[in-house]
This record gives sequence, C-alpha cells and structure tokens, in this order.
Amino acid sequence: MAGVDHLATERSKARFDVEEMKVVWAGSRHTLELSDRISRLVASDPAFRKDNRAMLSRKDLFKNTLRKATYAWKRIIELRLSEEEASKLRFYVDEPAFTDLHWGMFVPAIKGQGTEEQQQKWLPLAYKMQIIGCYAQTELGHGSNVQGLETTATFDPQTDEFIIHSPTLTSSKWWPGGLGKVSTHAIVYGRLITAGQDYGVHGFIVQLRSLDDHLPLPGITVGDIGMKFGSGAYNTMDNGVLRFDHVRIPRDQMLMRVSQVTREGKFVQSNVPRQLVYGTMVYVRQTIVADASCALSRAVCIATRYSAVRRQFGSQNGGVETQVIDYKTQQSRLFPLLASAYAFRFVGEWLKWLYTDVTQRLQANDFSTLPEAHACTAGLKSLTTTATADGIEECRKLCGGHGYLCSSGLPELFAVYVPACTYEGDNIVLLLQVARFLMKTVSQLGSGKQPVGTTAYMGRVEHLMQCRSTVQKADDWLKPSVILEAFEARSTRMSVARAQNLAKFANPEEGFLELSADLVEAAVAHCQLIVVSKFIEKLQQDIPGKGVKEQLENLCNIYALFILHKHVGDFLSTGCITPKQASLANDQLRSLYSQVRPNAIALVDAFNYTDHYLGSVLGRYDGNVYPKLYEEAWKDPLNDSVVPDGYGEYIRPLLKQQLHNARL
Amino acid sequence: MAGVDHLATERSKARFDVEEMKVVWAGSRHTLELSDRISRLVASDPAFRKDNRAMLSRKDLFKNTLRKATYAWKRIIELRLSEEEASKLRFYVDEPAFTDLHWGMFVPAIKGQGTEEQQQKWLPLAYKMQIIGCYAQTELGHGSNVQGLETTATFDPQTDEFIIHSPTLTSSKWWPGGLGKVSTHAIVYGRLITAGQDYGVHGFIVQLRSLDDHLPLPGITVGDIGMKFGSGAYNTMDNGVLRFDHVRIPRDQMLMRVSQVTREGKFVQSNVPRQLVYGTMVYVRQTIVADASCALSRAVCIATRYSAVRRQFGSQNGGVETQVIDYKTQQSRLFPLLASAYAFRFVGEWLKWLYTDVTQRLQANDFSTLPEAHACTAGLKSLTTTATADGIEECRKLCGGHGYLCSSGLPELFAVYVPACTYEGDNIVLLLQVARFLMKTVSQLGSGKQPVGTTAYMGRVEHLMQCRSTVQKADDWLKPSVILEAFEARSTRMSVARAQNLAKFANPEEGFLELSADLVEAAVAHCQLIVVSKFIEKLQQDIPGKGVKEQLENLCNIYALFILHKHVGDFLSTGCITPKQASLANDQLRSLYSQVRPNAIALVDAFNYTDHYLGSVLGRYDGNVYPKLYEEAWKDPLNDSVVPDGYGEYIRPLLKQQLHNARL
Repeated sequence: MAGVDHLATERSKARFDVEEMKVVWAGSRHTLELSDRISRLVASDPAFRKDNRAMLSRKDLFKNTLRKATYAWKRIIELRLSEEEASKLRFYVDEPAFTDLHWGMFVPAIKGQGTEEQQQKWLPLAYKMQIIGCYAQTELGHGSNVQGLETTATFDPQTDEFIIHSPTLTSSKWWPGGLGKVSTHAIVYGRLITAGQDYGVHGFIVQLRSLDDHLPLPGITVGDIGMKFGSGAYNTMDNGVLRFDHVRIPRDQMLMRVSQVTREGKFVQSNVPRQLVYGTMVYVRQTIVADASCALSRAVCIATRYSAVRRQFGSQNGGVETQVIDYKTQQSRLFPLLASAYAFRFVGEWLKWLYTDVTQRLQANDFSTLPEAHACTAGLKSLTTTATADGIEECRKLCGGHGYLCSSGLPELFAVYVPACTYEGDNIVLLLQVARFLMKTVSQLGSGKQPVGTTAYMGRVEHLMQCRSTVQKADDWLKPSVILEAFEARSTRMSVARAQNLAKFANPEEGFLELSADLVEAAVAHCQLIVVSKFIEKLQQDIPGKGVKEQLENLCNIYALFILHKHVGDFLSTGCITPKQASLANDQLRSLYSQVRPNAIALVDAFNYTDHYLGSVLGRYDGNVYPKLYEEAWKDPLNDSVVPDGYGEYIRPLLKQQLHNARL
Repeated sequence: MAGVDHLATERSKARFDVEEMKVVWAGSRHTLELSDRISRLVASDPAFRKDNRAMLSRKDLFKNTLRKATYAWKRIIELRLSEEEASKLRFYVDEPAFTDLHWGMFVPAIKGQGTEEQQQKWLPLAYKMQIIGCYAQTELGHGSNVQGLETTATFDPQTDEFIIHSPTLTSSKWWPGGLGKVSTHAIVYGRLITAGQDYGVHGFIVQLRSLDDHLPLPGITVGDIGMKFGSGAYNTMDNGVLRFDHVRIPRDQMLMRVSQVTREGKFVQSNVPRQLVYGTMVYVRQTIVADASCALSRAVCIATRYSAVRRQFGSQNGGVETQVIDYKTQQSRLFPLLASAYAFRFVGEWLKWLYTDVTQRLQANDFSTLPEAHACTAGLKSLTTTATADGIEECRKLCGGHGYLCSSGLPELFAVYVPACTYEGDNIVLLLQVARFLMKTVSQLGSGKQPVGTTAYMGRVEHLMQCRSTVQKADDWLKPSVILEAFEARSTRMSVARAQNLAKFANPEEGFLELSADLVEAAVAHCQLIVVSKFIEKLQQDIPGKGVKEQLENLCNIYALFILHKHVGDFLSTGCITPKQASLANDQLRSLYSQVRPNAIALVDAFNYTDHYLGSVLGRYDGNVYPKLYEEAWKDPLNDSVVPDGYGEYIRPLLKQQLHNARL
C-alpha cells in the first residue's frame, strides 16, 4: 500500500491551481520556497521526531526538548542559516521551548527598551546564546493588571545598585517560559523605588544562575511551576516561579531607554516617546494573529482530510458508505473553519502592514493612528485566538472518537494553543479595551473629528443608522458591498446603542462596568467587520492562477455569511436585515458549501504542511489512515508486554478472590 | 494559616439555607447522607490520592489505577457496602477504570440480553469479579453506524459453535474500555451468519484471556490503543484493540433473549419485544445527563470559588483590588453555567422518572411513549454534554492563566469529560434523530394524533404560531408562563418552518440531508425548551428551607434568559418576541446576576463536594489558593534537582559554545 494516494480522486476534483494557492497562502513565492525547504529539512531529520511526546514522562519530555533546541541551534550554525531561515526552523520544530522566549521576548525587550550602550553590552551575548534569557513579568497574584505587580527594585545610592525583592508570596514571578530550569538571565519587571518614592513598573536585567555551574545565585529561588494542560504540549516548557531575597544588581541593568535613574537616585524621563511600547504590543499581537491562522489551518487540514477518508452510513445493500465530508452537518461546521483559517491569514498579513505603518509614523513622531491601531490589534488578537481555540476543538469533535487519540494530533494542538486566549492580554479584557475605544469614537462623532483606520466607516454614521439591506434573492448576498454594509450597519448600531445606554449613567465608569458584557458584544461586532473587510480588500488585488480567486471569493462569502448566521440576532434586532434576508443568507451559505466541497482537499493541501508538522495520523497527506492508526497503537508503552505490569499484584488476586493477601 | 476560611465572608452573605439546598441538589436526604459519608470515606483514605496523576507515566498511571480498583473492591467487601454504596464509592474514587465497563456495560448487557440460563451461568461469576468483562461494539471503521459492523460470527452446525472472525483491518474492535489489558471476557457484537445468510448484528460472550495466566487465548490479538487527550484523564483506562482469527465459541454464548440460533442453525426471534433495547438506551443516556450536571457543577464550583479569591484591577491608591467575581463580564459567563448545572440536575432527575415510566409501560406491552422518550433522551444527552464540555473549558478560561495548570483540576476535568460528546451517540447524529422525530410530529399535527410527552405543546400549534409575547417591562420576563410560551412558540415555529422547507423536496430523504444543519437547530430549540420546562416544573413542587426556592427561581430565570439571549436570532426571526423585548430580557438578566452574586459561593457549597473530589487547588473550600499553588509547584519531578537533567549534555555546551563536542 506504500505510496498509494488514497485522496487522489479528491485531489483530481479541484477546480483551481493548487500551486498558485500555495503562494497566496504563504504570502509570497519567496516565503513559500523558504517554508517548503525548511519544513522538509526538519521533517526529514529523525532528530526532530515528535510523535512520541505524549508518551514521555515530564522529565524525559523536557530533556528531549533541551536536546532538540540545542541540536536546532547546532544545525542553524552548521547550515549558516539566515535569521529568517533560523526562525522558520524553530517554527517547524514545533515544540515550545526556552528559545521561544529568548528570541521572542528577551532579545526584543533589550532592543526596544535598552539604551545603545545596554544593547551593545547584552545583545552580542544573547545572539550567541552565551546567556539565555526570559521575560519575567507576571506574578502569582498579578497577570492582567501589570501596574499592580508587587516585586520591588529599590535603588541604593550607597552602592549604586538596585535591590530586587519579592515582598510577598503573591509577588513571586509565576509563568515565565524558560525561567524554571534554563534561563541564566531574565528581564524582571518590578516597582522602581528611589528616594522613598514609587515610580511604577520598570524592567531590569537580572542574572539568575551562575554561568559556571547553573546554580541559582544567592538570594534567588527558582523552579518549575508544574504540569500544564495536555500530554506533551506546553509541558516541554519550563514555565517558572522566581523569588528574590534582596538581590543586588548594578544600576546600569535597569532598562533605561525611556526612563533613567541617575547616580544620585533621581528618576528622569528621556525624550524617547513612551508610545514606543505600544509599537511592540502591535508587533507581538500581529504575530499571535498569524499563529492563529497556522494553528486553525492545521486542525482544519486534519479534519478535512479525515472527513474525506471516513465513511459512515448511507450505504445501499452493503455498498460503500458515504464520506462524512458529504454530510451537510459536517460541512456546516467544517467549512466555516476552513474559511476562518484563510480569513485570519489575510487579516494577519494586513496587520503586518499596519505594524510597518505604525513604526514609520512613530519614527516621524506621528502618534495620531496609534490608539486605533492598538485597539484594532487587541481586538483581532482576541477574536482570532478565541475562534481558533474553539475551532481546534470543533475539528477534534468532527473527527469523532478517533480525534480523542493523541495520534490524531488534535488533543495536543488544542492544549498547546489555548493559552493564546489568556497570554498577552486576556481576551475579554482586550475586548473591553476595544469597547472603550469604540465608545470614545462614537462620542466624538458629532465633533468633526473623523474616525480613522478601521473605524473610518463610523464616519458614515447617519447613513449606517438608517440603511436597509437591499437583498431580495439568495445570490444578492454574494455582493461585497451588500455584505460590508450589513456588517458596518450592525457594528455602528450596536456601538451607538451601547453609547446611549452608557449615557444614562451619572458615573460613566460605573456604567461601563455595569454594561460591560453588552460592550464586549459591540467590540466583537466591530472586530468581525475588520476581518470581513480585510478579506474583501484582499480580493480586490490581482490574484493569479486558474480559479484561485473564485475559491477565495467563496471562502470570503462563507466566512461573512457564517458570522452573520451565528450572530443573526445582532443583525435582526438592529434592523439591518429582515428575517427573510437572514433566511436567504442561510440558503446562500448552503449553496456555497456545495461549491467548496470538491475543492476542500486541495484547499487544505494549499497550506503545504508536511506530515511531520501536522503530526496527525488522521491528517496524513496520503489518507492512509486506518493501517497507520493500528500501527501507532502498538507503540504505547502499555503494549510492551501482553500481560500488564500489575497483573500479579492486582488483577490476579481479584480474579482468584485472594484479596486478603494482596498488598494494596 | 491552617484552618482559616478565606471565604467565610462570602459564606456569611448567603441569603438561603445551604443545608436545605444540599438536600435539593442531592435529590433526597438519603442520597445526601450517602454521598456525604462515602465521599468523606474516599477523601480520607490516602490510598485514593489522585493529585499525582498528571505526573505519572502511562505505565505507572495504569498500574496505579489497577491498584485503586482492586483496593476499592477490597474495601467494598470489608465494609460490606450495599450495591448503592459501592457504586457511590467508585464514583468518588473518580478515576476511569475497567470496573466502569464491567459494572456499567458487561453486567447490564447480560442482564438485558441474556436468557435466564445465561444469566444464571454468567452473572454470579461477574458479580464476584471472577471474570472481568467489557463491551466490544465499536470497530476501527465503525462507530455511529452500528449496523455497519464487520466482525462476523458464523455458525458451524458441525461443531455447534460460532466462529468469531475479523475479516478486515477496519473490523478490528477499537475503543472498548477495559479491553486492552484487563478484561478476561467481552460482549462482542458481530454479524450473525448462519446457513449462508447474514442476520445483522448480535451480541456474543467471548472469553479473551486465560484465567490462569492472563495470556490471550489462541486466535486473539488484543492490546491498548494508546494515549488519549490530557494528562491522567482517560489514560487510566485501557481502551483496547481486538482482532479475531477464527475464534470458536459454543453456540450458547450468543446472547439469546431476543433472537436465537437453534442446534440446526436456524435463526428464530423470541417473543420478547425488540423495543427492550430502547429501554436500555433511555437508561444509559439518563445516567449521562446526570453525569453532565456533576462534571459541570465541579467546574463551576472551582471557577466560582477562585473568582471570589482572585482580585485584579480596580484598586484606588494601592488599596485592595476588586474580586473578579464582581465584574459583570465574569458574572455573565459564570452564572449561566451555575444555572445550567442546576438545570441539568433537575432534568436528569426527571429523566430518571421517565425511565421508570418507560420500563413500566414496556412491561405492560405499551410502546406508545417509546419514540418520544427515545427522542427526548437522545436530545438531552446531546444538549447537556455539549454544554458541559464547553462549560468546563469556559470555567478554565474564567480562572485565567492559573486554570491552565493541572493543579487547577480543570484541564483533566475537560479531557476526561469531552468523550461524552461522542460516545453513546455522536451529539450531532442524536440531534438529527430528534429532528426526524419532530418532523414526524409536525406532519401528524393535522391528523388528529395528539403529540405526547415533551412534544405535547405542539398540540397548541395554532396558538403558538401566532402568539406575541406580552412583555412590556424587564420583570415581566420573570413569569414562568411568559418564558414557557416564548420557548414553545420558538420551537414550534422553527419545526414548522423546517417541515415546510422539507416539503419542497420531491425526495424527502434528500431534503433531510440538504437541510440537516437547519434541522439540528430546530432540535436544539426543542431540547432547550425541555430543560427550561422541567426546571419550571421542579419549582412548582414544595421546596422547604429558607430562601431555597427563591434562589432556584433566580437560577431558572437565568438559565432561560441566557438561552434566549444566546439564541435571540431564533426568537426574533420567528417573531416570537420583539427587539425591545429581547433588550428587556437582557436587562433582567443583568439584574438577576446581581441577585445571585452574594449567594454564589453558597450555591456551589450546596454541591457538597470534598476537596478530594474537586481535585483543584483553585477550588479549595477554604479559598487558601496561593500558598497551595506555590506548594504544589515544587512537587513536579522537574524540581527534584535544582540543575535539570540534561544541563551537562545540552545547556552547558550551548552556553559555552562547545556544540561540536555535544552528543545530540
């Protein structure tokens, strides 16, 4: 059976050029070539094997990750990989490790918040991994509320040092990845206190472990915080706990780009704008949105291929059964997720552009678009990660019982993905920030100040408050202008209604708290509009390749009409559409599913994932699922012996009624 | 700090009699006393410790479960526990094990499908656990479609035996719990073939392993199917794979209560009604609904207590921060789940009654209510398990970052719960069965045949198709009659609309497939109405205890209005309520959250769960969360040494730039 493509018939049905779609998905021919080359490099190297993760004990799992991370670094050096290639390699190794924090947080923090001098001192060490760093912000008692951190950094003018201290149990640093067992250094966030005054939270470079023997330095207590969700998953990472007992560091290890403490202990602000911090947040959240499309597309790829392999019911007289992908119930759950994966891909691409735009403006001291860009990225981070976490679990359920096996890859994908809903801003807290921005935007609508960027549509508030959808038949819903207007009207009306309700409160803050659940709904409506509108914008570009654009148009419409159906209450209660129009949208959606069906396998092939990266027996490219599932089962340690360990002590005494002798 | 109740203030706020609420939750004083006694017995016995599960390797985990199961049986015998007590003990041990299948499927299958003779032969052995049995139905290629099973049982009149055989790879038995390593016997389902004719799927008692040395008998290949979702969780269970190579069993090991094969190989039906099978399905699904309320209430208990402990934001000038349970965004996610836990409890109680009723009718050869009872239990199984799985994950997210730690108990609770959405009928397949029944009911509405049981309301179709809600102010939504009518109207109108759409298809089966996603929505609407109406019925009973009934009324209203808000599109598009009325419902919901708030901790205390059963640091009764989280972290094997295993091989060479020497 080796080499047989069980999905060949499916692939032959595709009505578009898959190779061109791969370019669209990758973003460019260059990125496709790069991803393809590096992912194959990783897949073909047995040192990067990952199919045994679920079976390893915590210690073995962690040690194995250490080995892989070091080996990856060795290969990066041997092959003289560029920074871009090295980053792709780490991506395809696909295993959370201390290196994620070293490269993704420690190095950028020094670059962004360190002075020139500090950068010159620390970056070369970090670039060569002569030191390994992590990012120690959250504490046992504080996550979302960064301003409430309790760790203190008190300046001692006698010695020209800061004294880093954990005054309470809840001030223990808690969660930082790479902290528990590996990092030699950390960026520690704490309250800067000098001359008896508290200047709020600042960052400090603190050495944690000896570079000779890796033992924690005096005054430092550090360890791992224990097992997390899932088998394998984030248990490859040493998320850590850290306590300081009056640990002294030189003054010049405070990150001083934005604020400084002088030799005399005076706190001074530099002329570098504090808004730079928001630029970093835009950057980090943009990468999270890109990751969402990766994670969701992996799950969708697995569920789509398996849905084409799996057959159940529908056979006449013992004939072949129906592929489960042909059931409308399966399509109505799976295809919106396929469409979402593409939608998130394109909105992620746009966010990358937004980051460049914001950075250029910051450099020109133009802060005008920053609040909007900040709200927009916060909202999209929240929207895409929530939808992705739910979507992965939905894909797992779409694979029926076999989706529950670790060999399906879906349990680990879910467990490793879900923290994205919490880290870098809890998703609900972020939506409240978006809502706050929307309420401000609405309140300024009459003032002549035009809303910018993704809120520009609110400038047409008068029209949007009273327009009525013109849809009369199902395919009217295929017009981008019709969809856009419905989404813009819905979002505007929801925001305006919330603003009106808020105005009834004497104390606006109390009102905001009381109505917060409603405000979150308005924020979601706004963010969904952004995703829809960026998908539509993408389709206004020239997209080469036979049938490629048509497929993307179908997916765009599915995404929009699926969201409309899911939130139809919003559209109806605000009078944007009628029940009849809602019903037509649903009819159109069904018809779109039929159009996607023959292209489904090719649309997930376009992600260009190797079997190694997918890590799923159900999602194999060749569809040869059952023999491989069977093969995988026997690898479980429990199958090392036919009679299980424990038979003599526990099973036999039970069967032989000899419990009085049993040692239990 | 030992012994201090950090939640004492919260408990003192409760406006109702918690002890009386415990009785309501338990179902009776007897059950409360029993549960209380047995759960404490388990909690106080260190042999039943379970806080280390996440850290054990698969082999150690499994062996530990064998020990516990055998020890539990020993205690059951020593303490001379009744069947009811023994079953509670297994429940509170709270670890999936082969005994679940032995007692929950093997024994009932013999009781339900075996003849008197077969029962006399096999049950005494099973009762004493001299044999251990499992239930081998699903195969690698077949789950939902039981009629498609491929295993064959061919009668050989020469030897008076059945030959059990696995003709294909996909016919391998796959998933049965307890099969992989423990069971000595199985009820095997396969196609009965005699005299060259296939009589469909029947059950057979097959011995798998020698009772002397536990080795598989000749012709039998058996093993474990490998790791499943989560750490600990269902990995304590040996879900198995099983293949037969022409295995012979005596003819009298076919379960012959309903059908027989004679000595000559003739297939005969007995006069026992086949509908008995449906009685068993009603029973099993009723227990699943009861389990849903247990699992959801555990998650809610953890999230509620932790939400009262956790504080974030809202402090003025360094004062104490706001308890997260005081945020409306938290309440609007948490309290509907609290209400759902109670709602599922009561609908589960009612299903217990329904099962008794169905059983009595079956014994009197009255099959008239069976289709309705079957549809109703199928739908409620689907509705409650889906909501519970989603609800547990929502509770985990409500605990922020710390909910991601295994010590929160929530990851394992989720992983161990989710298969309930798939086993005993995939939740979407079940809803399609409900939809089919609803369509039949609607089609008969004009015929004079009155709909029965939970569909009786459809008899008032004319009124329900045109009624308008009378709500004019928010508290009009507190009237049970108002809520019921809105839900009945919504369900009726959705079903009737679907039936009208179906009628447009020339081929009804094609129509059913094409519209299946819409039909599922109608089924959900009907099932939600059942839950709401059974909660309302419960409140029509006499419920003693200060304030108890008032609290339950609040929860009932929260459940109903939350569902209304979530599915407001259904209510609006069918014209059951106006946008203004929907908005009033939402206002009322907010006000109900405020009323529940001071009672929240007491409402989860009423579940009467021990800290052992909850298995969560975040959900501790005393609220002493942070010191215990800190303590738990250090127990991780990674913390056995300060410098991790692998430092010398991998970290040091990296830091010292000596990768060329490293063995990677």
